[in-house]
Amino acid sequence: MAGSTLGNIFKITTWGESHGKALGVVVDGCPAGLPLSEEDIQKYLDRRKPGTSAITTQRKEADQVELLSGIFEGKTTGTPISLMVRNTSQISADYTEIAENYRPGHADYCFDAKYGFRDYRGGGRSSGRETIGRVAAGAIAAKILEQMGITVFAYTRSIGPVDADLTKFNRTTARSTITAMPDVEADEKACAYLQQAREACDSVGGCMECLVEGLPAGIGDPVFEKLDANLAKAIMSIGAVKAVEIGDGAEASRHTGSENNDPFRMENGKVTKISNHSGGILGGMSDGSPIIVRAYVKPTPSIFRPQQTVNRSGENTELTIRGRHDPIIVPRAVVVMECMTAITVLDAMMMNMSAKLESLLEFYR
Amino acid sequence: MAGSTLGNIFKITTWGESHGKALGVVVDGCPAGLPLSEEDIQKYLDRRKPGTSAITTQRKEADQVELLSGIFEGKTTGTPISLMVRNTSQISADYTEIAENYRPGHADYCFDAKYGFRDYRGGGRSSGRETIGRVAAGAIAAKILEQMGITVFAYTRSIGPVDADLTKFNRTTARSTITAMPDVEADEKACAYLQQAREACDSVGGCMECLVEGLPAGIGDPVFEKLDANLAKAIMSIGAVKAVEIGDGAEASRHTGSENNDPFRMENGKVTKISNHSGGILGGMSDGSPIIVRAYVKPTPSIFRPQQTVNRSGENTELTIRGRHDPIIVPRAVVVMECMTAITVLDAMMMNMSAKLESLLEFYR
Amino acid sequence: MAGSTLGNIFKITTWGESHGKALGVVVDGCPAGLPLSEEDIQKYLDRRKPGTSAITTQRKEADQVELLSGIFEGKTTGTPISLMVRNTSQISADYTEIAENYRPGHADYCFDAKYGFRDYRGGGRSSGRETIGRVAAGAIAAKILEQMGITVFAYTRSIGPVDADLTKFNRTTARSTITAMPDVEADEKACAYLQQAREACDSVGGCMECLVEGLPAGIGDPVFEKLDANLAKAIMSIGAVKAVEIGDGAEASRHTGSENNDPFRMENGKVTKISNHSGGILGGMSDGSPIIVRAYVKPTPSIFRPQQTVNRSGENTELTIRGRHDPIIVPRAVVVMECMTAITVLDAMMMNMSAKLESLLEFYR
Amino acid sequence: MAGSTLGNIFKITTWGESHGKALGVVVDGCPAGLPLSEEDIQKYLDRRKPGTSAITTQRKEADQVELLSGIFEGKTTGTPISLMVRNTSQISADYTEIAENYRPGHADYCFDAKYGFRDYRGGGRSSGRETIGRVAAGAIAAKILEQMGITVFAYTRSIGPVDADLTKFNRTTARSTITAMPDVEADEKACAYLQQAREACDSVGGCMECLVEGLPAGIGDPVFEKLDANLAKAIMSIGAVKAVEIGDGAEASRHTGSENNDPFRMENGKVTKISNHSGGILGGMSDGSPIIVRAYVKPTPSIFRPQQTVNRSGENTELTIRGRHDPIIVPRAVVVMECMTAITVLDAMMMNMSAKLESLLEFYR
Repeated sequence: MAGSTLGNIFKITTWGESHGKALGVVVDGCPAGLPLSEEDIQKYLDRRKPGTSAITTQRKEADQVELLSGIFEGKTTGTPISLMVRNTSQISADYTEIAENYRPGHADYCFDAKYGFRDYRGGGRSSGRETIGRVAAGAIAAKILEQMGITVFAYTRSIGPVDADLTKFNRTTARSTITAMPDVEADEKACAYLQQAREACDSVGGCMECLVEGLPAGIGDPVFEKLDANLAKAIMSIGAVKAVEIGDGAEASRHTGSENNDPFRMENGKVTKISNHSGGILGGMSDGSPIIVRAYVKPTPSIFRPQQTVNRSGENTELTIRGRHDPIIVPRAVVVMECMTAITVLDAMMMNMSAKLESLLEFYR
Repeated sequence: MAGSTLGNIFKITTWGESHGKALGVVVDGCPAGLPLSEEDIQKYLDRRKPGTSAITTQRKEADQVELLSGIFEGKTTGTPISLMVRNTSQISADYTEIAENYRPGHADYCFDAKYGFRDYRGGGRSSGRETIGRVAAGAIAAKILEQMGITVFAYTRSIGPVDADLTKFNRTTARSTITAMPDVEADEKACAYLQQAREACDSVGGCMECLVEGLPAGIGDPVFEKLDANLAKAIMSIGAVKAVEIGDGAEASRHTGSENNDPFRMENGKVTKISNHSGGILGGMSDGSPIIVRAYVKPTPSIFRPQQTVNRSGENTELTIRGRHDPIIVPRAVVVMECMTAITVLDAMMMNMSAKLESLLEFYR
Repeated sequence: MAGSTLGNIFKITTWGESHGKALGVVVDGCPAGLPLSEEDIQKYLDRRKPGTSAITTQRKEADQVELLSGIFEGKTTGTPISLMVRNTSQISADYTEIAENYRPGHADYCFDAKYGFRDYRGGGRSSGRETIGRVAAGAIAAKILEQMGITVFAYTRSIGPVDADLTKFNRTTARSTITAMPDVEADEKACAYLQQAREACDSVGGCMECLVEGLPAGIGDPVFEKLDANLAKAIMSIGAVKAVEIGDGAEASRHTGSENNDPFRMENGKVTKISNHSGGILGGMSDGSPIIVRAYVKPTPSIFRPQQTVNRSGENTELTIRGRHDPIIVPRAVVVMECMTAITVLDAMMMNMSAKLESLLEFYR
Repeated sequence: MAGSTLGNIFKITTWGESHGKALGVVVDGCPAGLPLSEEDIQKYLDRRKPGTSAITTQRKEADQVELLSGIFEGKTTGTPISLMVRNTSQISADYTEIAENYRPGHADYCFDAKYGFRDYRGGGRSSGRETIGRVAAGAIAAKILEQMGITVFAYTRSIGPVDADLTKFNRTTARSTITAMPDVEADEKACAYLQQAREACDSVGGCMECLVEGLPAGIGDPVFEKLDANLAKAIMSIGAVKAVEIGDGAEASRHTGSENNDPFRMENGKVTKISNHSGGILGGMSDGSPIIVRAYVKPTPSIFRPQQTVNRSGENTELTIRGRHDPIIVPRAVVVMECMTAITVLDAMMMNMSAKLESLLEFYR
């Protein structure tokens, strides 16, 4: 199935495997006239780069992006933008064990069931490195949104049992802590917890949250192309995400209507909501309040303990994984979530332009 | 935006509003040769019909389906199947209040922001009645899956604070209780809770869960068209759903890898998993275990208490909603979730047929 | 395959068979705020109605359209518009011969090869009646284009060996002649030719042409979504069309560059072209001159002479078709071509709105 | 608009401009298990390479393809295949004239109208070099079709007034003549004609034809996704194509039904047609006979004579184009037509696999 393309007008197509020659993305449908340089993309890629702290994989990759098309005199031309990152640090390891055995919590068995065989080196297409294309594309979407006064900001909400205290929420902190938590104390606790897990040859999950601010009301659609439905798809498509919430999410199901409804009020001549249990989306369309999305990430399946499993020949066996693996995915996935959100929101805004006849007529007047 | 179509090969297009002449769906891409009658569809529609118990809206609708195309001599022909249900019980009420004021928790304001105006009668396109088309289409998908030995079964897991005890899980119970809970005691407690909420002019949320059993491994795709990503979109597109979980969902984020990984084991010559924290999906593809999806539903926004809001002229005001409204959506949404799941799974299976060159060559040999 | 949906934003889904209960279309993505009534649609349907002249099938059908959704207070709401026409005149004929034998020039054999069996009554889904949905949808697209000062006008250019003389081109004539030719004399000759063919139990082909005037430059796309590529698809998808041309079409291949290039010139402060060999499209995008598309239609395959063929059991046999059939399709297909063109052009215009960053920023300012 | 992606399951996304760093394509949805090397692709690219004869542009490009992803141990893995060709011979010419003036017959003015500005170097995205991606993708499609016993073969039918004599049709000849004509004498005449045109600083058009042999009956769809409709789109999307015909094409419109209908006959236990006026497609589906598609190509718009035109400031002016340009496109476009046809046919075959319930059930048994 042709599953590597996402979007309706702002359309991205990612390609590449963990241990192939390169990874990349083609961004089609980007409006013409946006100033864009490799630096704009690199900034985002650097946020997901491995090897930057004790809690990420020790694989060293420069992840230097090359901008191959779609730009003329420093501006996008409206034609496809091709972005590529060469792989440089694939260790020519002994993959016999992974080739022969199905790693629990990984997609190895599913790949074999679907395709008959698989590129087992470093997880192949299922590797976290696939997100390079997503982030490169998201950097462009985010830059466009920024020009419209819309910001997309993601951070870590919890790691294992450690929750960030959102009353201490600070954006600069979220961008500087190792865990991407917006609260220094929680970051420290989480680091200690991670260290412990690592020593136990184990791994850890967590939760990340993304805010979209400045989005006008009415973006999205009332039935299948609901803004929250598309966000759910985009975010759930990030490897290891097992749950997606909008606004109060699962909690809302425990409350009553009188608690959960957000009263509308006029504020400075603008319709606003007194509370934001809805997470900025009602009936599939933005309601003018900040969009709040949350994603829950399972613990990294690669752990360094012996695990029971099955091999390709259908025999029970025991497997111990080796190599370089993050004990937690969340801090590096935060930028991926931000990018998937930016792409989804921008595409919805572009699809929205012909919703009113009046707008269409005015556009072509 | 053309947001009323879903699917790649098995494609559904719903249409209709709460108080329009009719509602329906066109199902395109249904394989030829399936025996199909109006009764097959009606069975499913009857499960979402209003007016059947004390906890649903008192609007009486026969919701009699008419099969308009795509069938010849009792079998599908491979061409579009058009299904329609006439609206019969639209009360010609006084809609002035709803027309003028934005109901909190509803999409009224978003519709006006997006389209410039809205069909305010009964929620228009945002009405729960839109799901008639989804259910009619899902009945077909479910019938096809059944022929492949795949069952899709949804039920209520919680209502407000009342959880079903899954150790008492019983399918017949889930199909006979008023709440669609698979546990009689919980059903009784939930009914009492609902009665209380109703007396307080309030409403209630809840959680529903859906199981897919019998699905082979390898269905879905490793990147954007992940099976879980498409399930998340399909389920989140059901009105009032605010969170979607796969397998252990949010809980997985609190666990370690050694707890969360499901060991593979051979059983009767088949690869199986000892546990199913993954909810039957790894890396976006089915892993052979039952698929488990959960959806959290917010309390019905229509409550019969005065609420603060804003009117179309941008003035603060107070609104009291009248009319016929379910104090909870969940029991009637269960069949909608089942149908959206069936549609998504079937479409993924159809897209999967050309994944291996070997299969393609054999098919055309 | 889900092949009954067309378009990206302005999306149409047709359904129904010749002898089913009804035929129709769902139009999704129509902008909100367009005044629309059944009369707007009926006007177009009446132009393709059978039984109106000696040269069309004698089947009598009222083809009365019913508008089922998407309208509120006389205006489109932006949600799907469902349109339906009931079949009333299906003669309960003896279909044994058609059921058993493959009609030459028809899709009978292909249907069996693809789907295993077919609805043989009146051609089933391959019937010209399928175009009811296209025309109903096209009436809406044309009405929107009209509001932007864009007209779409189709007519018959030739019937068998009889060519219309375009120096006598007259729009009113094209709308009043039996053949839809814009030239009275040619119409008379063509009618005589048709009468002759009918007496010989034979049928006739022809050519139709469509003009789009008032379209601004820059609509369309430079690669796969070229405006001419999408027109070619939309027009070739009309049954019996075997060739599509843009501008000078095949003739251009015989000319030199110096003959075929259209020089640009300023006229009243506007970029224009001195000639229009290009048919209004350069590099896949409109160039500001009128769009000219031509479609060549094969003779109706249903002829009343004995024909050699094969039956479902794989035996050679002879078949004589009976029933009600047009000796020529072109005069009734003209409105279908007009509608497919309108739909394609409108969709391209809607997709075009975010081509420039500047437009996007201005829209959301 | 995101117009650089084509296909439903076998999906291609091309990128790159004439004078950018590189050009390429991402092929998504290719079945797993196909042996594939750079040589497989290079063979096809070499057929469209410039600088190989007196009648093509003198630009020298190695057009060496690099296979970047989707292959493991020499076989496709089912994940996206990324293919890239670096540009090496962009002459750093003085583009002032082209930058300022709109070349007649080119898309310059349309680009400015759509995007506000354009990459004027060598035609930018509208350059024939864009077809590198199409050809690279088509090489893969053709290889898969070959394994199913299906061949796709294109050649030149006419150049200016010179027609190939198809009674002399020879495949080896078509692959060895400078003009890609399958008839040596016509090739010689055409070369003389081209030489004359070149001396007159003029250019020439022509016609190319493509055959698909070995395709089973029933591929394609009865309504919008007709096989001929999709071929028309794919072929019309090749730059400079102004007309597309299937089978007898425009000629069919001059014939009667009794002449044009192809009688069915049994031959060696197989349903065949005595003639093939239909060009292998009836009602949008393959009928088992060879598919015949024809494309008419306009003369190259770049001619070396002074031409009247308009500049970006809206002033009338005269322009003389310089540089390296083919006096005819057809001989090099033949492989592009072959590739677009292969891609379209393969995609239709993949979409067709779930047309019958029986096939679906058997696949998953």
